[in-house]
Amino acid sequence: MRVDYLSQIDKIIDNALEEDLGPGDITTSAIIDSSLKGKARLLAKEEIILAGIEVFSRVFSRLDPEIVVECTYRDGDVVPNGYDIGIIRGSMIGMLSGERTALNFLQHLSGIATLTKRYVEKIDPSKVRVIDTRKTTPGLRILEKYAVRMGGGFNHRFGLFDGILIKDNHIAAAGSISKALAKIKANVPHTLKIEVEVEDIKGVEEAIGAGADAILLDNMSVKEMKEAVSIARGRVLLEASGGITLESIGEISKTGINLISVGAITHSARSVDISLEVIKE
Amino acid sequence: MRVDYLSQIDKIIDNALEEDLGPGDITTSAIIDSSLKGKARLLAKEEIILAGIEVFSRVFSRLDPEIVVECTYRDGDVVPNGYDIGIIRGSMIGMLSGERTALNFLQHLSGIATLTKRYVEKIDPSKVRVIDTRKTTPGLRILEKYAVRMGGGFNHRFGLFDGILIKDNHIAAAGSISKALAKIKANVPHTLKIEVEVEDIKGVEEAIGAGADAILLDNMSVKEMKEAVSIARGRVLLEASGGITLESIGEISKTGINLISVGAITHSARSVDISLEVIKE
Amino acid sequence: MRVDYLSQIDKIIDNALEEDLGPGDITTSAIIDSSLKGKARLLAKEEIILAGIEVFSRVFSRLDPEIVVECTYRDGDVVPNGYDIGIIRGSMIGMLSGERTALNFLQHLSGIATLTKRYVEKIDPSKVRVIDTRKTTPGLRILEKYAVRMGGGFNHRFGLFDGILIKDNHIAAAGSISKALAKIKANVPHTLKIEVEVEDIKGVEEAIGAGADAILLDNMSVKEMKEAVSIARGRVLLEASGGITLESIGEISKTGINLISVGAITHSARSVDISLEVIKE
Amino acid sequence: MRVDYLSQIDKIIDNALEEDLGPGDITTSAIIDSSLKGKARLLAKEEIILAGIEVFSRVFSRLDPEIVVECTYRDGDVVPNGYDIGIIRGSMIGMLSGERTALNFLQHLSGIATLTKRYVEKIDPSKVRVIDTRKTTPGLRILEKYAVRMGGGFNHRFGLFDGILIKDNHIAAAGSISKALAKIKANVPHTLKIEVEVEDIKGVEEAIGAGADAILLDNMSVKEMKEAVSIARGRVLLEASGGITLESIGEISKTGINLISVGAITHSARSVDISLEVIKE
Amino acid sequence: MRVDYLSQIDKIIDNALEEDLGPGDITTSAIIDSSLKGKARLLAKEEIILAGIEVFSRVFSRLDPEIVVECTYRDGDVVPNGYDIGIIRGSMIGMLSGERTALNFLQHLSGIATLTKRYVEKIDPSKVRVIDTRKTTPGLRILEKYAVRMGGGFNHRFGLFDGILIKDNHIAAAGSISKALAKIKANVPHTLKIEVEVEDIKGVEEAIGAGADAILLDNMSVKEMKEAVSIARGRVLLEASGGITLESIGEISKTGINLISVGAITHSARSVDISLEVIKE
Amino acid sequence: MRVDYLSQIDKIIDNALEEDLGPGDITTSAIIDSSLKGKARLLAKEEIILAGIEVFSRVFSRLDPEIVVECTYRDGDVVPNGYDIGIIRGSMIGMLSGERTALNFLQHLSGIATLTKRYVEKIDPSKVRVIDTRKTTPGLRILEKYAVRMGGGFNHRFGLFDGILIKDNHIAAAGSISKALAKIKANVPHTLKIEVEVEDIKGVEEAIGAGADAILLDNMSVKEMKEAVSIARGRVLLEASGGITLESIGEISKTGINLISVGAITHSARSVDISLEVIKE
Repeated sequence: MRVDYLSQIDKIIDNALEEDLGPGDITTSAIIDSSLKGKARLLAKEEIILAGIEVFSRVFSRLDPEIVVECTYRDGDVVPNGYDIGIIRGSMIGMLSGERTALNFLQHLSGIATLTKRYVEKIDPSKVRVIDTRKTTPGLRILEKYAVRMGGGFNHRFGLFDGILIKDNHIAAAGSISKALAKIKANVPHTLKIEVEVEDIKGVEEAIGAGADAILLDNMSVKEMKEAVSIARGRVLLEASGGITLESIGEISKTGINLISVGAITHSARSVDISLEVIKE
Repeated sequence: MRVDYLSQIDKIIDNALEEDLGPGDITTSAIIDSSLKGKARLLAKEEIILAGIEVFSRVFSRLDPEIVVECTYRDGDVVPNGYDIGIIRGSMIGMLSGERTALNFLQHLSGIATLTKRYVEKIDPSKVRVIDTRKTTPGLRILEKYAVRMGGGFNHRFGLFDGILIKDNHIAAAGSISKALAKIKANVPHTLKIEVEVEDIKGVEEAIGAGADAILLDNMSVKEMKEAVSIARGRVLLEASGGITLESIGEISKTGINLISVGAITHSARSVDISLEVIKE
Repeated sequence: MRVDYLSQIDKIIDNALEEDLGPGDITTSAIIDSSLKGKARLLAKEEIILAGIEVFSRVFSRLDPEIVVECTYRDGDVVPNGYDIGIIRGSMIGMLSGERTALNFLQHLSGIATLTKRYVEKIDPSKVRVIDTRKTTPGLRILEKYAVRMGGGFNHRFGLFDGILIKDNHIAAAGSISKALAKIKANVPHTLKIEVEVEDIKGVEEAIGAGADAILLDNMSVKEMKEAVSIARGRVLLEASGGITLESIGEISKTGINLISVGAITHSARSVDISLEVIKE
Repeated sequence: MRVDYLSQIDKIIDNALEEDLGPGDITTSAIIDSSLKGKARLLAKEEIILAGIEVFSRVFSRLDPEIVVECTYRDGDVVPNGYDIGIIRGSMIGMLSGERTALNFLQHLSGIATLTKRYVEKIDPSKVRVIDTRKTTPGLRILEKYAVRMGGGFNHRFGLFDGILIKDNHIAAAGSISKALAKIKANVPHTLKIEVEVEDIKGVEEAIGAGADAILLDNMSVKEMKEAVSIARGRVLLEASGGITLESIGEISKTGINLISVGAITHSARSVDISLEVIKE
Repeated sequence: MRVDYLSQIDKIIDNALEEDLGPGDITTSAIIDSSLKGKARLLAKEEIILAGIEVFSRVFSRLDPEIVVECTYRDGDVVPNGYDIGIIRGSMIGMLSGERTALNFLQHLSGIATLTKRYVEKIDPSKVRVIDTRKTTPGLRILEKYAVRMGGGFNHRFGLFDGILIKDNHIAAAGSISKALAKIKANVPHTLKIEVEVEDIKGVEEAIGAGADAILLDNMSVKEMKEAVSIARGRVLLEASGGITLESIGEISKTGINLISVGAITHSARSVDISLEVIKE
Repeated sequence: MRVDYLSQIDKIIDNALEEDLGPGDITTSAIIDSSLKGKARLLAKEEIILAGIEVFSRVFSRLDPEIVVECTYRDGDVVPNGYDIGIIRGSMIGMLSGERTALNFLQHLSGIATLTKRYVEKIDPSKVRVIDTRKTTPGLRILEKYAVRMGGGFNHRFGLFDGILIKDNHIAAAGSISKALAKIKANVPHTLKIEVEVEDIKGVEEAIGAGADAILLDNMSVKEMKEAVSIARGRVLLEASGGITLESIGEISKTGINLISVGAITHSARSVDISLEVIKE
C-alpha cells in the first residue's frame, strides 16, 4: 500500500475492527482453539472491478500479522463471476474475527469501482474524465476516491482545503463572480486553480472574463453545454455536473466538455457480492 | 440525542469534519466575512423516511455552537417530496463549511431508513421483524443501525461482542452443532441467547436438540422455512437470511419465521436527494 | 494473547506506561548504559492464581520488542509461594523502566483471580457459577473480567450494551415489571436474554409471568432464595446478588440458584505479592 | 476541580464511560423516556473518608451537562454511616446510564482515602508523613494519589520522571552508590532531590557520604531505622519502606524517620459502600 | 477564530498544555487558592507585528472558560514597544498555569509575523508576493502559515497533498520534465496547478514547453531570473527560491518574477519579547 | 532511541508526517514507481552540532520500515561544513515523501544544539551549567530539551509538574517568601527541591532564611550576583536568569553562580543548513 497515506488507512481499519470486535469475538473465542490454522478462498460471486484488496489484506494483518493473503487479481482488474480473487491462510480465530470487517471494505470499495467503470464505459476516456465529488461516506473518503480511480475514474478535489470551488453562495456574498474571483486571487496559494460554479451561459462568460481556470456547469442542458464549449474555446476546463446518469452521460460526453462529475459513483453504489469460504482439508 | 452514545457519535462527526476541512475551507475563508449571518432551507427533493436530523444538526454545532437548526420533521417521519425538513440559521462561514458533511450523513442515513421502510411495508410487522446485519459501512455502524430502526426495522447484534452466532466454520471446528453449543454454554455470559446458523432441516433439528435459542436459516427455500417452522413449534426463534429481496420478502414473511435479516438495507441503500438552499433575504 | 481484543489491551498498556514514564525515566537513563543486558526472575512471594502474565510480558515488548519473557506458569495456574513464574531477559534500561507498570498489572490481576478462586472453592462449580459484576476499576474492565475467568469465575454482561438488566428504577419508570418487559421486547435485539432484578418473591412471580429469561434476587435471604427456586422450576435462571461473602456463599450455593454475583472479587481484591529480581551473573 | 489537571481527568472519565456504555445503554434507552427527570440520594453505607466527589459529579456532567450534583460533604470529610453525601437531579436516562461508572470512581477513591486515614491515625502527623508509592492501579494514578492526600497522606514522586530514586539495580550497574550518585549529579536537573534505596546501615553511611538528599530504608528493622536516624543527624530525609502494616506503623513512626511509604493504601484498598438511591416523589 | 480549522488548533493547544502541565502545576496548586481572582497586562516589550492573540486567549479558555482576554490590538497590527496588547482577567490559578504556554505561542507566532513583515517591506507587494515554504516547525504548520499571512506574506502549498511541485528527483525518475508533466497530467485532479522546479534557463524553456503553470527558479542569479522572466512572457508564474535574505530580496523583487519564497521566515524567526504582568490591586 | 520516551516521540513524528502528507503526496505518487529504490546523502552545509539524527531516521522508518539510515556522526558531534552525516537507502517514494519532515526536525534540533554550544563555549563547564527554560516550541519540548543536552547544556525542570519554582505572583498571593515556602513544604513531595525567584538581594536573604534549595536571580546585575554568591556561601544553588546573551554570559559565569538559564537557546535558535541529496547511480 502507498506509504504516504498508510497511517490514515490504518486508523480507518483499526476503527472498523474496534467497532465490530468491541471487547471481543465472544462466539469464536469460546469455540475455536487459538492454535487452529485454516485456509479460505476469497470468491467473486458476480463480475466485479476489484478495489480494496490491500485494505482487505491489511485488516487481517492488523489483527494478526501471521495471516497471509495471496492474490490472483489486483485492484483495478476485472474479476469474472465465480473466480477466486485470492487465498487467505492463518489462524482460524483471526480469520473468523476479521472476516466481516475485511469483506465490508472490499465489497463496498469494489462496488464503487464497478459502478464507476460502468460510467467510464459510456464515454471516450481520451477526451473526457468521469470524476467524483465530495458526496462520499463520512470517514471513508480516501478509500472511496481510490476506488473511483480503480474503476477508471478521476478525482476532483479531496476536500475543502485542496481545491477552490466558488459556488452560488460565495458569489452572492461577494456580490458578483468577478468580485469573488478577485478575493480569491488576493488570498489563496498560487498552486491552486480556481473553479467557479455557474448556472447559465451568462455565468460562463463572466467566469471566463474574470479569469477562472475551470467552470462547473451546474445542471445545464446538453445544448447549453455545447454553447459553453464554443464560448470557452479551450481557455478554461469545463465540468458537467448535476443529475448525470448512465443514460445521459454518453451524450454529455460528446459535447466537448472536459470533465463529468457523478455523485452516484460514491454515494449510491451498492456492495458487490464477494464471499470468503473456508476450505475443508 | 441519546446521551449514552453521544460521545461516540461526536467522534464520528469530528472525524468527518476533519476529513473534509483539513487545514481549512480555502474558498469560503477567502470570500466570506466571518460576521456574515444567513439562513437556509433543508429540503427533501424526493419522498423520504428521515433519519439523522440530529446528526445533521450536530455537525454544525460542533463547528459553531451558534448555528441553530429548527426542524419541522423528526427522525422516522415520512417527508414528502418538496417539503422543508427544517431551517438553519447562523454564520455563513459555518454553514458553508459544514454543509457537505452534514448532508452526507443525512442523505446516507435517510437512504437506509427509506429502503428499510420499503422492506417493512411488504410484511406484517406484528408477526415478523425485518432486521439488519453486520454488513454495514466501516465506522458508521451505530448510525446505520439507528437508521434501520427509524425505517421500522430492528437490529440484530451490534458486533461480535454482544450476541452469539455459531456459524458453519465454528461448527466444523467444534465437530458438531452439539459440541459447539456445549462449548458456548460452558463459557459465555448467561445474558446472551445462542443462535446457530444452519443450512438444512437436519441442522434445525440438531440445533433445537442441542438447546439453541435461535436459528438462522441460511439461504433456505420458502418450503424449507415452513418445515423449520413446523419443527420448531415456537421453541426457538427462526431467522430467514440470505439473498432476500423486495420481491421475495412478502412470501417469506408468511412462513411463520420470526425474523428476516436483509444485508441490502445497510450495504446497498442509495443516498436520497436532500438539499440545503440559502435563502436570499 | 487473543487477537480479537489485543488492540484494546495495547491501549491500556500504552496508557499505563505513559502515566509512569512521562517524559522519561530520569534515574535509569542517567545511570544505565543502553547497551547493558540483564536477566531477572519473576517470583511469587505467596501462593497465587496467576492472571495477567501475557499483559506483563507485553508491557515490556511495547517498550522494547527485544525483551523476552519465558514463563513456567500460565494464567489460571496455581503458583506456590516462592516459585519462579518466569525469567525476563533483555536490555536493563527497558527492564527497569517497565518493571513497576508490568508488576502493577500482574499483581492486581492475579489478586482478582486469587480471590475469585477462594469463592469458587466454596461452591460446587458443576451446579452454580460465581460471576462478576460491573463494579470494576474504571478503564480495566476487560482485564479484570479476564482475571475472574482465570480464577474459575464467569462473567456477567460486559457493560450496559451487551446484556439487559431491568432494575427497580426501570420498573418504577415503566409502571410495572410487565410493562418494562413489554417495552424491552418491543425494542431490543433478539440475541439478548432479559434479566429482571427483584426484591421479593412477588417480584419473582411477576417476572416469570412476564416472560423474563433470568431473575436477579437482590439481597434475598437463603429462605427466599429457596422459595424462588421452587417457584421457578427451571423456567428461568436465578442469580443471587448483594453482600455475598466467603462465609455466606457456601450455603447460598446450595439453594438451587444458578448464579452468584460477587462485586468484591473485582472491587476489593488486594494485590498479591510478586517481585522481579535481577539475577547477578 | 483543579484546572491544571482537569483535561487528564476528563480523559479518564470519558474512557470509563465508553467502557461501560459502548454502543449504548440498551435497557435504559428501551424503557426510560428521554424527558423523564428524577432525583437521587448519594448515601454512605459505612463511615468513610470521602474522595472523588468532583469526579463522581463530572461523570454525569460529561454525559449530560444538565445533571446537577449538590453535595453536603467535600473530599477529605468524614461521612458517617447512613448519611447523605449529596443529591443528584436531572434526566433519569443520564442518571441511570452514568450511575455505575460514577460510583465505581467514588467507591474506589473513597476506599483509598479511608484506608490511608487509618494509617495516618496511627502516627503523629507533625513528625512523620505517610506517603504513597508507584504501586497504583494502571491508568488511575492521578486520582489515587489525590485520594491519598484526601486521607491525610502525602505523595511520593508521581512517576519515573519527576523524582530520582536510585535502586539496587542502578547501584549494581554503576558499581557503587558513589558512582551512581556521581552519574546522577552530572546529568539530571538541579530541581530534583536525589534519593537512594539502601538495604543496610552501611548503605546509609555511603549514601550520606556521596551526597544523597534522601534515603529509602528498604525492609529495615525498627532497630536499624533508629540507627539510621542517629547516623543521619538530620542531614538527609529518611523513608521507611517495605511491608508496613497498620500494626507496625506506630512503632516505626517513633523511630525518628521522616517518611513512611505504604503500597497497600493504593494497591490493596477495598471499595467502600456507597449507594445511589432514586427518590420516589 | 475561524471555525473551519478550530478543532485542529484546539488539538495543538491541548497538546501543548498537557506537555507543560502533565499531572499538574505543583507550585501553583500548593500556594494559590482556587478562589483567588486576578488581572494581568499583556505587554509588548519591543515593536512587533502581532500574530496569535486568539490562540493566546484560547489557551486560557481551554484551561478555564471563565478567564477572559480583552484585546486592544488584533493579529496583523503593529504593536509599538511598551504598549499593552490586552488585559487578562480570571482565576489566578488558571492564569499562572497557562501563562507560559500561552506566551510560547504568542511570542513564536508574532516572531514569524514580525520577520515576514521585514521581508515584505523590502518589496512592492502589488507586484510580487513573499511566500512561505514547508520548512516549518513540525506540528505547528497551520499556525505558522497563518502568522506569515499576518506579516503580509502569502502561503505556498500547505503540504504534499494540496499542491504539485515537481522537483529534480521526480524529473530524474521520470526521465525528463516533459515526461514528469505528462504523468502528472494523466493522474492528478484538475483543481491543482502544476509547478516545476528548475535549475537553469534550459529548464525554464522545457517546463513552459511541457505546459507547466508555474516554475520554481532554484538558486538562480538575478541575471538568470531576468532571463526567465523574458522567456516566460507572463505565460507561467515564476517563483524565486533559495537562500533569499533581507539584503537580496529587494533586487530580486524587481526582476519581474511573481513569487519569492523564503524559508527563514518560518524556520529561523526568533521569538519576540512579550510579557504578562499581574496587576497588583 | 531511548525506549523510555520513544512512544512520545513517535506521536510527535506521526503527527508531523500527517501534517505534511495529509491524504497523500500527490506529486510523488503520480510520478514515482513504488518499486524504485534510491540512495541519498545527508550533508551538512555549515558547521553544526548534530542533534536529532535518530528522529530523522525514525521519520523514515515510521513511513517505511525498509528505509535505512547509516550514520557517520552521532548526536552531540561536531559535523564540519561539507561533510556527509550519513547515507539513506530505500524506496524513492518513501524517501521523497518523508524528506521535508525529517529535515525539519533535524535542522531545528541541530540549530538548538549548535546555538547552545556557542553559549557553553563561553563558560567553564566544570563550574557552571548553561540550562534551558520552559520557553520552548509548543509540542516539541522533549526534543528541544534533548537538543540542549546535545549542545552541552543542561535541563531545568521539564514542566510545571516536575520542579518547584516560586515566582513573584506566588509570593504576592502567599504574602511573603516565607509563607510561600511554608505552604510548599506542607504540600509537595519530598523528592523535589524548592527554587524561589527573587528580584533583589533582600529576596536572596529571605529565601535562604526560609529554607529554599535554589534561588533564581531574576535580571540581576553582575554586581548583585556576586553579592548573592557571597551571601549564599554554598548553602543554596544560584541561577542567573533574564536577558543573558553571548556577550554577557562570560562575565556572569565568573560570578560564582551555579546555573545560567538562557531562553534564547530554545526559542530563538535558527535552523541550520542540512540537505538531502539523491545520489545518481
